[in-house]
Amino acid sequence: MNTAVEINASLGAGADSPTHAVVHAAVVGATGYAGCELLTILARHPAASVTCLMSSGRAGKKAFAIEDSHPKLRGHFSVLCEPLDVDRLINSGSNVVFLATPHETSHQIVPQLLENGLRVVDLSGAFRLKDSAAYTQWYGFDHTAAEALAEAVYGIPEFDAPAIAKARLVSNPGCYPTSVLLALAPLLKAGWVDVAAGIIADSKSGATGAGRKPSDKLHFPEVNENLRAYGIFHHRHLPEMLQELEVSRKDFIFTPHLLPITRGILTTIYARLSPQHGIGDVEALFKEFYAGAPMVRIYPAGTMPEILGVANTQFADIGFALDESTGRLILVSTIDNLGKGAAGQAVQNMNVMYGFPQQTGLL
Amino acid sequence: MNTAVEINASLGAGADSPTHAVVHAAVVGATGYAGCELLTILARHPAASVTCLMSSGRAGKKAFAIEDSHPKLRGHFSVLCEPLDVDRLINSGSNVVFLATPHETSHQIVPQLLENGLRVVDLSGAFRLKDSAAYTQWYGFDHTAAEALAEAVYGIPEFDAPAIAKARLVSNPGCYPTSVLLALAPLLKAGWVDVAAGIIADSKSGATGAGRKPSDKLHFPEVNENLRAYGIFHHRHLPEMLQELEVSRKDFIFTPHLLPITRGILTTIYARLSPQHGIGDVEALFKEFYAGAPMVRIYPAGTMPEILGVANTQFADIGFALDESTGRLILVSTIDNLGKGAAGQAVQNMNVMYGFPQQTGLL
Amino acid sequence: MNTAVEINASLGAGADSPTHAVVHAAVVGATGYAGCELLTILARHPAASVTCLMSSGRAGKKAFAIEDSHPKLRGHFSVLCEPLDVDRLINSGSNVVFLATPHETSHQIVPQLLENGLRVVDLSGAFRLKDSAAYTQWYGFDHTAAEALAEAVYGIPEFDAPAIAKARLVSNPGCYPTSVLLALAPLLKAGWVDVAAGIIADSKSGATGAGRKPSDKLHFPEVNENLRAYGIFHHRHLPEMLQELEVSRKDFIFTPHLLPITRGILTTIYARLSPQHGIGDVEALFKEFYAGAPMVRIYPAGTMPEILGVANTQFADIGFALDESTGRLILVSTIDNLGKGAAGQAVQNMNVMYGFPQQTGLL
Amino acid sequence: MNTAVEINASLGAGADSPTHAVVHAAVVGATGYAGCELLTILARHPAASVTCLMSSGRAGKKAFAIEDSHPKLRGHFSVLCEPLDVDRLINSGSNVVFLATPHETSHQIVPQLLENGLRVVDLSGAFRLKDSAAYTQWYGFDHTAAEALAEAVYGIPEFDAPAIAKARLVSNPGCYPTSVLLALAPLLKAGWVDVAAGIIADSKSGATGAGRKPSDKLHFPEVNENLRAYGIFHHRHLPEMLQELEVSRKDFIFTPHLLPITRGILTTIYARLSPQHGIGDVEALFKEFYAGAPMVRIYPAGTMPEILGVANTQFADIGFALDESTGRLILVSTIDNLGKGAAGQAVQNMNVMYGFPQQTGLL
Repeated sequence: MNTAVEINASLGAGADSPTHAVVHAAVVGATGYAGCELLTILARHPAASVTCLMSSGRAGKKAFAIEDSHPKLRGHFSVLCEPLDVDRLINSGSNVVFLATPHETSHQIVPQLLENGLRVVDLSGAFRLKDSAAYTQWYGFDHTAAEALAEAVYGIPEFDAPAIAKARLVSNPGCYPTSVLLALAPLLKAGWVDVAAGIIADSKSGATGAGRKPSDKLHFPEVNENLRAYGIFHHRHLPEMLQELEVSRKDFIFTPHLLPITRGILTTIYARLSPQHGIGDVEALFKEFYAGAPMVRIYPAGTMPEILGVANTQFADIGFALDESTGRLILVSTIDNLGKGAAGQAVQNMNVMYGFPQQTGLL
Repeated sequence: MNTAVEINASLGAGADSPTHAVVHAAVVGATGYAGCELLTILARHPAASVTCLMSSGRAGKKAFAIEDSHPKLRGHFSVLCEPLDVDRLINSGSNVVFLATPHETSHQIVPQLLENGLRVVDLSGAFRLKDSAAYTQWYGFDHTAAEALAEAVYGIPEFDAPAIAKARLVSNPGCYPTSVLLALAPLLKAGWVDVAAGIIADSKSGATGAGRKPSDKLHFPEVNENLRAYGIFHHRHLPEMLQELEVSRKDFIFTPHLLPITRGILTTIYARLSPQHGIGDVEALFKEFYAGAPMVRIYPAGTMPEILGVANTQFADIGFALDESTGRLILVSTIDNLGKGAAGQAVQNMNVMYGFPQQTGLL
Repeated sequence: MNTAVEINASLGAGADSPTHAVVHAAVVGATGYAGCELLTILARHPAASVTCLMSSGRAGKKAFAIEDSHPKLRGHFSVLCEPLDVDRLINSGSNVVFLATPHETSHQIVPQLLENGLRVVDLSGAFRLKDSAAYTQWYGFDHTAAEALAEAVYGIPEFDAPAIAKARLVSNPGCYPTSVLLALAPLLKAGWVDVAAGIIADSKSGATGAGRKPSDKLHFPEVNENLRAYGIFHHRHLPEMLQELEVSRKDFIFTPHLLPITRGILTTIYARLSPQHGIGDVEALFKEFYAGAPMVRIYPAGTMPEILGVANTQFADIGFALDESTGRLILVSTIDNLGKGAAGQAVQNMNVMYGFPQQTGLL
Repeated sequence: MNTAVEINASLGAGADSPTHAVVHAAVVGATGYAGCELLTILARHPAASVTCLMSSGRAGKKAFAIEDSHPKLRGHFSVLCEPLDVDRLINSGSNVVFLATPHETSHQIVPQLLENGLRVVDLSGAFRLKDSAAYTQWYGFDHTAAEALAEAVYGIPEFDAPAIAKARLVSNPGCYPTSVLLALAPLLKAGWVDVAAGIIADSKSGATGAGRKPSDKLHFPEVNENLRAYGIFHHRHLPEMLQELEVSRKDFIFTPHLLPITRGILTTIYARLSPQHGIGDVEALFKEFYAGAPMVRIYPAGTMPEILGVANTQFADIGFALDESTGRLILVSTIDNLGKGAAGQAVQNMNVMYGFPQQTGLL
């Protein structure tokens, strides 16, 4: 029993309007990896109830038990998983819909969900970029849901919880951007980094980050005992990082690599610190920035987090080292790509949207 | 939110004597893998509080934060981990002690803990064999804690919860035996297996089953991309299985193999079914035997569980297939060796000892 | 420099008709994993030259450099890989064709290759079963190449090199059967096993054994950190083993499992030895049986081979242990599924067909 | 059969003094991973014979078969592996000694070996740094073998084959430096990189790079499903890179990471290209620089090598991409840390020392 349990207990104890104490959640994209993690978290969440499971890739199929897709979930849910049907979703009695769907699907159905009074946490990239023209360039489709895009809130609770609390549509960040933004934002917002000297984010991700659809590149023997860089200079998560960091493409390089592991991202970030700041300043800045943030853990100066520390958790861990003679700063940022990089962050957003402590159900 | 949460809620809500609602638990051997899993489970448990952390291998060392040993636990526990000190343990205010210690250590300290009114769940092999002479043969030491051994209850809650409920000392089964016994016991107790025709348990385990102490055989490049059989005809878990199954060594073969994974056991069991029983009978037998057992999941006939379904869970999954023309039965039994094979079962035993629903904190 | 080099040197030195000293080999199915291993071996083979590369799955595509499919082979071959074209294959100047193709393709093209004077080593299952009716049952197609099937020689050089030497069509055994047959054949041929007491072969294979075609089951996160049994009682390799061992289905069980590794098979075999034979007899039998066999290595009694010992080699390693009081025998047999389980055995067969020492190019 | 075989054949055929055609090699440190790879290569080498195997960590032990340490080598070598004994080594009839030993051991015995007329390829770090004072700082011991250090040649055959050809002592580079130097040297030597803008080498290595000695950090469950950065700003391979690249510490950052794989390094390098050069220039420069280099493979612009392409080979593969608008250059360099990163390079050095084509025995 720890803090989370006490929170959970207080949630139940203090609720004088029990019908509102429980959020009814729908998960669309339940058969994917982020869907499985959402369900794993929600099964333990003291204030959420899963009322609807849908799968966007099974049009015309019959409803099925979710354990047929995720054996791990056997015995947890009695509600069946249905093919995506927007009308049924709207009428499912859900308060909030988690979309762990392809971005095309999210782009298509979000407006209708919002119109019908559902709140949405979208885990796809469909509403992350404020500039709709960027979708044509980076995602290859023309964005037509202008109103929804305009109101979408980019959902990192550590950055802007008040906006998330009010949002109807939260756009859940990409896994790579989450690992990069959490580490860089405090320093950039403080103006402590010499941006023009260039920032490099060298990321390494486990294979679930690429989804559950089989392909040549994700075939077991092609990933195992291998490491591969990809999307050099043009990965789809790049514009999202530039937008949130407010830096230009010439000053920021992002290189993702595919690790032979199931879960986890480690990003190694290289930047030049403005000369007047020492390692103690950096530590103090991080501690202050994340003082009220239960899901971010700052490591002592010089001690670096590793993937094992966050895999199968919902935390982000951040470490840093500084070569004081040259101002060279190295940050190491780790998350579980399915946790804080996807489902954990989505539920954290839901917690903020419904006024629960951020860590509810996540410890 | 699911059944577990409701249980948790009812535990809190219904407790009219709140000071007794929480079990104070000590974990000795906190720096090992089973220790980490115990702490992960207990951190979420709604009716347990961790009051003492000790490590048996750090004599003379100072107390340290448990996250120095398990980065994953950072932020969960404020109590420090101390070197094992039996007096301090006795005076730690703990109700129950989990011993995730070497069997020599458990053998040595259990009597003193019992004398001082602590209840014990021992995860080592020190109290599993009823015949003290067997320790000389299989463990290489002379067992001198006769009284404790006599009262120890072999702790599989699905088999004998009433005895566990009353026990002062529960001997938590080995990981391999758990996977084998859960699959075979229903059939053997029903007398449906032709034992004389021989039973074979071919087990494959992840590397955490061998503990955290570095060795040549557990060095990363010696395990990775490898599979190795070991302990052929003479593994230390064999006598425990013979004892609980009540079969003789000539009729039962157990072969463990080391898998290049972190967590999980899959055991493939070969037996001859008595001719009068069909596959439907086997399914019915399993369903009935485990009807009230929340931590065992029986698969439909012909569908086999795999390690992914149980890794990072506290469940045991069991599947079976029968070649009806020959009576050849194959059982596949999977657990997480650190979950139902160690820490999950230990907490399940604690739940039974303190009258909580078996699955409390385990879903 | 070792024995192999001396063999290679003598091959070159002693050849008085140099134009015949080199076998011209075609590899069809070059883009698969067995194809890659064939090319890796043939690149080093002192008496073989690769004259033609074809891929059966690229109909209508242009010829391409083989390193586009297998980066490892960059710089090794200048001949391009073409889509399968039987006429071009026949006119490619090849003496021998390695077919690492789907069994349907092999079934279809082998007769034409034989008619045109090519010798064939077929790595598919299309010509392994002597009873053509078995193809309907186990492979789901009607076998119509009766003549080719009749003349096909099941190619384990350790069992019948003279027949292979004369063969026009060698049917290369499956990977699982190779691991099982090499371990069991000496004992069964000697009549030392109590077959009626049942023989169990519990096999564990790396993922390249399932080929290079992406699928749900072979997607990286579905294999990694997992183990799964499959094909229980009805794997396609079973009839091949029954045929070669001359045992009936009721006396032999074969269970394959998918390991989270790239290469290697370990089979654990359980049998009852006839009472009059001791462990020394077994060792002597194996040593004698494989006395002239350079690619099979017999381990000392009680020492078991592991996958690391054979991965990326062309050897089969065999170990054994006997519980003399009960006659229970355990054999552990290891191969690289792409090596002795496929390409290595295919080249060994080629060596026998052309009169080279069996180990030429394989050490 | 390919180029290598033809070379091998010509070596044998053309030798009019056969007793000198074979180099007699000793391998000290035969029980380690680099030792195993050396033996694997030498077993196939047409012009080398292994005459002596020693292990530096087995003082006082008896000689043993090398397959007891490396099961993979079973059947390859009849010479036993002895504890290190310098006198016996000197009298072993060896021409060249490969030292795959701890740097302290190399530092200690190299002078004596040279004095006695043996040539040495030292795989340790003991003779890589020209400045003996650097050993105190980076390796923690005082270097006292000044003469040997002065004559040692840093052995990258692609950079200075003539010096290697004459050397008595070749200091084989570290695995990380090999991957970095091969990629950067052509550009730096050409003066095309804006060094003051900073160069970053983010390296990821398999676990065999850390040797065979068990430790907490290399215990299987601590490496598996993990990634960890280490040695930030102060890895022992850094001074070696600064020395060979002739850059200062303020302009070059090297960060190694431990990958959960057995073999292979991938280094991602970030640099700014001088503005006047385009991607075509870079490609041309690399092709020209490595025109006569059989063990380095240059990828087409924009295509990146991956670890699978070099694992279990002796090649280095190099790819590059340029963002022409900003001059940002990314290089990806891959080697097998035991191959081109250790044993492969060592044998390549031996080939140069004895006048064989560089790739002899390495394809």
